[in-house]
Amino acid sequence: MKATALANSNIALVKYWGKRDERLILPNNSSISMTLDKLHTTTTIEFSDRYKEDSLKIDGRKVVDGEEFGRAVHQLNLVRKMSQSHLHARVESENNFPKAAGLASSASGFAALTLAATKALGLHLDKKELSVLARQGSGSACRSIYGGFAEWQMGTRPDGSDSYAKQIAPKEHWPELCMVVTVVTQEEKKIKSRPGMSQTVANSPLYKAWLETVEGDLEKVRAGILEKNFQLLGATAEVNALKMHATMHTATPHIIYWEPRTITLMKEVMRMREEGLEGYFTIDGGPQVKILCLEKDAKKIMKRAREVKGVQETMLCQAGEETKIIEKGLF
Amino acid sequence: MKATALANSNIALVKYWGKRDERLILPNNSSISMTLDKLHTTTTIEFSDRYKEDSLKIDGRKVVDGEEFGRAVHQLNLVRKMSQSHLHARVESENNFPKAAGLASSASGFAALTLAATKALGLHLDKKELSVLARQGSGSACRSIYGGFAEWQMGTRPDGSDSYAKQIAPKEHWPELCMVVTVVTQEEKKIKSRPGMSQTVANSPLYKAWLETVEGDLEKVRAGILEKNFQLLGATAEVNALKMHATMHTATPHIIYWEPRTITLMKEVMRMREEGLEGYFTIDGGPQVKILCLEKDAKKIMKRAREVKGVQETMLCQAGEETKIIEKGLF
Repeated sequence: MKATALANSNIALVKYWGKRDERLILPNNSSISMTLDKLHTTTTIEFSDRYKEDSLKIDGRKVVDGEEFGRAVHQLNLVRKMSQSHLHARVESENNFPKAAGLASSASGFAALTLAATKALGLHLDKKELSVLARQGSGSACRSIYGGFAEWQMGTRPDGSDSYAKQIAPKEHWPELCMVVTVVTQEEKKIKSRPGMSQTVANSPLYKAWLETVEGDLEKVRAGILEKNFQLLGATAEVNALKMHATMHTATPHIIYWEPRTITLMKEVMRMREEGLEGYFTIDGGPQVKILCLEKDAKKIMKRAREVKGVQETMLCQAGEETKIIEKGLF
Repeated sequence: MKATALANSNIALVKYWGKRDERLILPNNSSISMTLDKLHTTTTIEFSDRYKEDSLKIDGRKVVDGEEFGRAVHQLNLVRKMSQSHLHARVESENNFPKAAGLASSASGFAALTLAATKALGLHLDKKELSVLARQGSGSACRSIYGGFAEWQMGTRPDGSDSYAKQIAPKEHWPELCMVVTVVTQEEKKIKSRPGMSQTVANSPLYKAWLETVEGDLEKVRAGILEKNFQLLGATAEVNALKMHATMHTATPHIIYWEPRTITLMKEVMRMREEGLEGYFTIDGGPQVKILCLEKDAKKIMKRAREVKGVQETMLCQAGEETKIIEKGLF
């Protein structure tokens, strides 16, 4: 009745931004991501009749109510329903990176929670089933179920049964591809992704135009991964991120996740390219800049990023593993 | 054969971005601006058979070739053609603010050049004719011909004869409306407006969506001015600017005029609003942030803007006068 799962975060190369169904978390567009090897969440769950209620600890801090607690309990309820269990759970979760700062903590968080909970209750789900389930906790979590590169196919059914991720290629396919993750602030963002998306869909006059461009980006990024065409992958991912932020910037009230240092890093990446050092940036719903590059240039690019004033941390990531059960629990 | 004109710069509240005719400077959309009282260009022109060629001095510096010289000579040629003159000209021009840094120096520059040149050659053009002529030097210059608030009507004719500005209201209509102009860098921008526009029209996937929203913004800003509805004017102008920058950000190569301090100021304005201090920002093709506010709040907002690290200068502007002939020449 106890299991521990480790899930890697993933960073979208073609972004997910906006839902057609808020409750089931069904997106308005498909998305493609790279699962990272160095940003992960470890979650231990125990179901027991000793527990009188669900309890949640994240990074050593008890979470007793609020949205975060509600979302975790909702996810536990889905798993309990599948296994016809009424047991309460003790959940402890640890991130090895700052939470809610645009490093996709909810992706790894809900992927780990979903796998640990199903295992603890004795369910044996395949990856597709896990992906459908994880999606209902946090959309992007459905991609973290897989290692390497994954595509979340938006699906069309109202019940969401065809909205889940599939692997495009395993991590071994392209070990030379790197992502330099920079942290410019450790602060939690003021507007979380969920309300940010709703607001953008509701009133950005550019949202529809963004959606119309996504299919083309998906094709290019898919081809970029399969053919290991770095220029195609990088350039498409960069403009895709800029388009997503363009929809946010033009929502009312505006959602501006960029910080001054975000601009500095974006321009530094563009300058590097002019100098022949090939990197492409992507930015999620947050201020952090992630730089795609090839292994041969990674050290130089890391160095350049570190020299930017205000950059607090840089991590060199490659494609990481799927969400998996590990032996060593958190309690 | 000699005349001196003073033209005020203007800042668009509904932006002009993109041409349907590059040679005649015919825009893809109409635009509305406020002529400012404190940013101006003074230009003295003398036509004489003593001059063997056209000469141009801007801010004390001789300009002997390049795009800037070519554009000035092209404008002089248009005026010479109208008056059937073959005389060469000596032109001296002075800006009281940094040039090509997103403070609309080409608007005031070409408005002053156009009026001074026509007067020096003895032409008496009405405002509409001056506006059509100034437009061919620099699009936004057609609005600086007027004081107060002006709308550049895009027109539909291929020869551009119906593409000129009209006054919406004189400066006396709304003296309480202020614009705090901040300067975050005095550097000339790397990508000038002209190539920036072409690039955006050529390949931003959001450009078409932006164009579709302009008509609605024009109606709101026009009404905002006529009814002195500050909230309507400000909120519309702010999102209009963000939409324009969204089209630039998503062009390839990206055009990112924002500097780190631009973001800081944008967020400071948003924070002020949350605190009840009503200001709205607008940003042209450049890093400078201009803050619309009412006179009653102008001092407080100036102070807040000045306290932002890296802000080099702040100027409190109101609606300014039309382009006019002044007595005192530069030589």
